[in-house]
Order: sequence, then structure tokens, then C-alpha cells
Amino acid sequence: MESTLLMQEAIKARAKAYIPYSRFGVGAALLDQDGHIHHGCNVENAAFGPTNCAERTALFRAIADGHAIGSFKAIAVVADSDGPVSPCGVCRQVMIELCSPDMKVILGNMKGDIVETTVGELLPGAFGPVDLRQGQAPE
Amino acid sequence: MESTLLMQEAIKARAKAYIPYSRFGVGAALLDQDGHIHHGCNVENAAFGPTNCAERTALFRAIADGHAIGSFKAIAVVADSDGPVSPCGVCRQVMIELCSPDMKVILGNMKGDIVETTVGELLPGAFGPVDLRQGQAPE
Amino acid sequence: MESTLLMQEAIKARAKAYIPYSRFGVGAALLDQDGHIHHGCNVENAAFGPTNCAERTALFRAIADGHAIGSFKAIAVVADSDGPVSPCGVCRQVMIELCSPDMKVILGNMKGDIVETTVGELLPGAFGPVDLRQGQAPE
Amino acid sequence: MESTLLMQEAIKARAKAYIPYSRFGVGAALLDQDGHIHHGCNVENAAFGPTNCAERTALFRAIADGHAIGSFKAIAVVADSDGPVSPCGVCRQVMIELCSPDMKVILGNMKGDIVETTVGELLPGAFGPVDLRQGQAPE
Repeated sequence: MESTLLMQEAIKARAKAYIPYSRFGVGAALLDQDGHIHHGCNVENAAFGPTNCAERTALFRAIADGHAIGSFKAIAVVADSDGPVSPCGVCRQVMIELCSPDMKVILGNMKGDIVETTVGELLPGAFGPVDLRQGQAPE
Repeated sequence: MESTLLMQEAIKARAKAYIPYSRFGVGAALLDQDGHIHHGCNVENAAFGPTNCAERTALFRAIADGHAIGSFKAIAVVADSDGPVSPCGVCRQVMIELCSPDMKVILGNMKGDIVETTVGELLPGAFGPVDLRQGQAPE
Repeated sequence: MESTLLMQEAIKARAKAYIPYSRFGVGAALLDQDGHIHHGCNVENAAFGPTNCAERTALFRAIADGHAIGSFKAIAVVADSDGPVSPCGVCRQVMIELCSPDMKVILGNMKGDIVETTVGELLPGAFGPVDLRQGQAPE
Repeated sequence: MESTLLMQEAIKARAKAYIPYSRFGVGAALLDQDGHIHHGCNVENAAFGPTNCAERTALFRAIADGHAIGSFKAIAVVADSDGPVSPCGVCRQVMIELCSPDMKVILGNMKGDIVETTVGELLPGAFGPVDLRQGQAPE
């Protein structure tokens, strides 16, 4: 799928954002291996900490629909930002857990600026599943 | 809808849980005002903090599909616990933000035990949207 | 220690809050079994999700100083709210993990209103350490 | 201060980790501009999501002690990992909020392996405070 088409889906998803506190709406569109698209938006919370971002909403729902980790093809993310929006560190950590490191991440804004990167580039030297299993408790 | 029917949907949702770290699978089924059901499962992370619970997965995806906060009818949650599973504090905080305080919450386990409560009972004297707006910064 | 004295410490802690996004400052003061007090404030983040509350800051630092879980005596929390401020669900979940269920929680505001409750009352039927160990993975 | 000395403090901090679920202990030592060191360890939670990492514990407590954002000099992090431990995305997001992008981050393990990086290198193209303020709500 063209990056611009996936970005258009992210823009649709952004319209559903629940953002009473920041007024900063973000949309995401996740492409799975069957060619289906999963929409996500950010969902804020008065307590801030339980806020969920658009990227994670899209990924969590796709897992709940039975998609396997590592099977996703691309994700587009959009906000009304000056340059292409950048995923927060929490979302990068969730991407590294659930997606292939070389999965395409398409970042854009409402003016049509687009940049492409990958999950691995967004979290260099990531702490991931393998690291946890290696770890040992302090004596 | 009968609580037992919604619980059966939560059991189906639980089968999708991504739980390599705890092996503790949880499923949730959220009933909206149109009678549709939104599935959620827990999705863990090697870094623990970015882990998402089943209840939140169901709620976030329903918001991303355009459902209004406060419009949901009931949620069922299930795990293979000794008694009916109990939502964590993060999920209770998300419920109080997105659901009516008197919305029914049906808690169960794989043995068929069920208890019913409400969003408000789960988080007595909750910190919610109104509280944040009242607050003032320290001088 | 008198509740009002612990509350005065929470007010001092609140002055350190890092709150560029909500302007809602919260302070906490945790009393340990040796009579020492650990200050906490909320520390916000542009990405909202990584925001930490005052109660958790106080508890995490006390654990890092070597205090045992369940050994704390009381916590006071304060904000410039209409009534006494209420802990969010995330903080309640952290309290139930690290504190005795009957530990005193003193909630107040800048006008001097105070109510007292306990960790257990704030999270009825909590999901806690015992529950996780009981859980079994889906087959 | 020498990186190896700060790492020794992180190792001391690690001994306090509360890690009943992962058994993966992490310690952190944050150097402030006055030459004082703030210890942090990870503090886990049965609900996983409210878990706090060592880096964040150290940073939050230093803010609560009145240190200004951007004033920190270096942070060391250690775990019993195969190579030097890597901060999770949540901690990287908190670092980018509270620290200078060029602040030194020293990563190590219990075998004495050490690598040095910076806050900015850990979160390329980070979403930070400036981005949130630029954002506009969807119409």
C-alpha cells in the first residue's frame, strides 16, 4: 500500500481522538499482512498517566483481533504538528515488542509533510523481550 | 444482554492475550449502546510499564471507532483466577473517565464465578475530569 | 505524627511539582516507620503517559532508600482542589502493592479541608500480588 | 565524576530493587550539578503497568528535591544483563523531558561492560515539550 493512502486512514482515525486536556489529536493506521487497516487515536485521562496514544490503540486492538506479533506491515501516524509528528517513547517501546524492527513507520502532519522511518531506527539499542529473559535478580 | 453472554465474549477475547511475561491472560468484552461488543485482551511488554490490560484495550478501540464517552452499557472481564478477577487501578481510572459511574462491570473467572459491580464502586471518591479542571497551580 | 503535620510536609513537597501541561500541582508526604518523611510531587511529561504522580514519587523513592514494602505508616496528599484531592487509580494500585491495606491516607486541599481514609478503602477488592500468582495462562 | 564511580552508585541502588515478578533488578544513579547522587531502582507492580523503572525513580526524586529540569549532569544505569542494559522507551521519554539532550547516559552490566550514550541519541527525533505546544486539536 502507498504511504499516502495509509496516511489518509490515519487522518480519519485522528477525528475520533478523545483529547479534552491537551487538545492535541493524533491518529494512527496500522496495516496488517492481510491488507486490513486498524485505526487508533489517542485517548486522554484526567490523571494523565493512563492516557493512551494513537499508535498503541491501533496495535493493541490488532493483537486483540488475533494478529501475531511481528506480522504487521506498516503504521502511519499523524497530528497537526509543525513537522511530521514523532511517536513518544512509550509507543516506541510497544512497537519494538509487537512489530518487526524493520517495519515501516510513516510520520506525517496535517499539511502533508511525510517522513518514513522504521521501528528499529526509532529506538536504537532497544530494551526488548530478549533482554528481560537474560536478566538475573540481584543476589 | 445477559451478563453470562457478555462473559462468554470476554472468554473468547482472552484467548488472544499476549502474555509472555506473566502467563496471566485476561479478556474483556465491552457492550455499546448499539448492542455491539468490543473485545480486549491484555498485551504485555518486556518493560512492564507499557503493558496494556484487557479492559483498556476494549475501551480504547471503541473510542477509536467513534463511540462517545459515557455511552457504554456494560463490560465483562475474565481471567483464570481463584475468584472473579478484579480490575487494576489503571483500568478503573480509565473506566471512570470513559464510562458512566453506574455502568455495570461483570467480573468472572474460568470456573464460572461471577460478581457484578459498577465503575463508581470500583473507584470510590475517584479523581476524574472535574477535579483536574478545578485544580490550580502552586503560586 | 499528627495528620496536620504530615499535611504541612505535603504542601512543601507540592511546591516542587513539575506541571507545565496541567498546571495542577500535587504534593505528597510519606511517613516511614522510623519517623522520617519522604516528599513527592507530580512530574508531568509532554507525552502524558509517562507522567508520575506525587504519591508514587514518594513511594518509589522510599523503596529506593531501602524501606520494606508494608512498613510505611501514613501518606498525606494535597492539591489546590475544591475538596480534598483524590488519588488516581494508578497511585491506588501502587499503594496496594507497597503499603498495608489499613495504612492511613490523608487527603487535603490548600484551604485546609482534610479527610482520612485507608489504602484498602481506596481500592475495594483490589487486584494485588496474590491474584497474579494465582492466575493461569489460557490453554 | 568518573563514569565508573557513578556506575558503582548505580550498583548500590540496584540492591534495593523491588522485583517479585521479573526478578530483573535495575539500578540507577543520577548526578546533579552540585555533585550529589540520587539513587533509583525499579519498583514492580502485580498489574505491570504501574511498574516504575530505576531511571525514572532517580529522576522523579531529584525533581521532588527541587532540582531544575535540564540541570542534571549524567545518569548511570545497571542490570545483570548480557551486554550493557538499555533504557526502556518510557524512561527515554522521561529523560528527554527532564534532561538536556546531550546529557551523558552510562549503561552497564554486572560484569563491568560499559557504554556511553546521550539522552538525544537514545530517542532520535523525540516527541518533546515543544511538539505538544505546537499541536492543534482536530476541527
